[in-house]
Amino acid sequence: MSDEDVVGFSFLAESNVPVWYLKPGETIFKEGEAAKELYIIQSGKVEIQVGNRLLDTLEANDIFGEMALIDGAPRSATATAKTEVALVPMSKKDFLSLVTKAPTFALDVMGMLARRLRTANRAI
Amino acid sequence: MSDEDVVGFSFLAESNVPVWYLKPGETIFKEGEAAKELYIIQSGKVEIQVGNRLLDTLEANDIFGEMALIDGAPRSATATAKTEVALVPMSKKDFLSLVTKAPTFALDVMGMLARRLRTANRAI
Repeated sequence: MSDEDVVGFSFLAESNVPVWYLKPGETIFKEGEAAKELYIIQSGKVEIQVGNRLLDTLEANDIFGEMALIDGAPRSATATAKTEVALVPMSKKDFLSLVTKAPTFALDVMGMLARRLRTANRAI
Repeated sequence: MSDEDVVGFSFLAESNVPVWYLKPGETIFKEGEAAKELYIIQSGKVEIQVGNRLLDTLEANDIFGEMALIDGAPRSATATAKTEVALVPMSKKDFLSLVTKAPTFALDVMGMLARRLRTANRAI
């Protein structure tokens, strides 16, 4: 991701929830699965794929997995650790609470979705 | 758009701001322009195009033009009245105020962006 994609999510990686450590090649979630949480990348790189097509490679402080929490649909893509990865999970409840209490977080999430949508529309 | 795209934006079309009436074929905004407002469709159909490619056809109670307000980038698409159209414009200031005061509105906007992103990712 480019610099402009870095939004204010780094503070989320400093919470006290347990960190999930993965090795290269490990699956975080698969296309079609039900969604219980989103993830903030503390370190490492994560690949987002639909089928065999690579949609994005995400890095530290990026969040992913938020779409399924927002619209309740199954995972639309598969997320895999590209390197050693440390992830902080966030539940739907905590996500909704943060949107309610921190409007700038909501705007950051919207900004990220808008940028991803611009990228996708250019690629069609 | 399908039924699942209908989110809770209808109340926005009932505000007291002046309504903008367009005839079929009239341009609402063009790709590359700076963005000052988003629009809520009160009646009629609006086509969203990038170059000659039709991205979406929007109907009453849909909102559009929000992406450029969210991320400050120029319009990424051109919006044209397909039929006779009545639009309610909303300024960036009012949009940000609504996000702050009405978290469910923020979630509705995120939901709309997430659905558009799913559709775009499927079309790539």
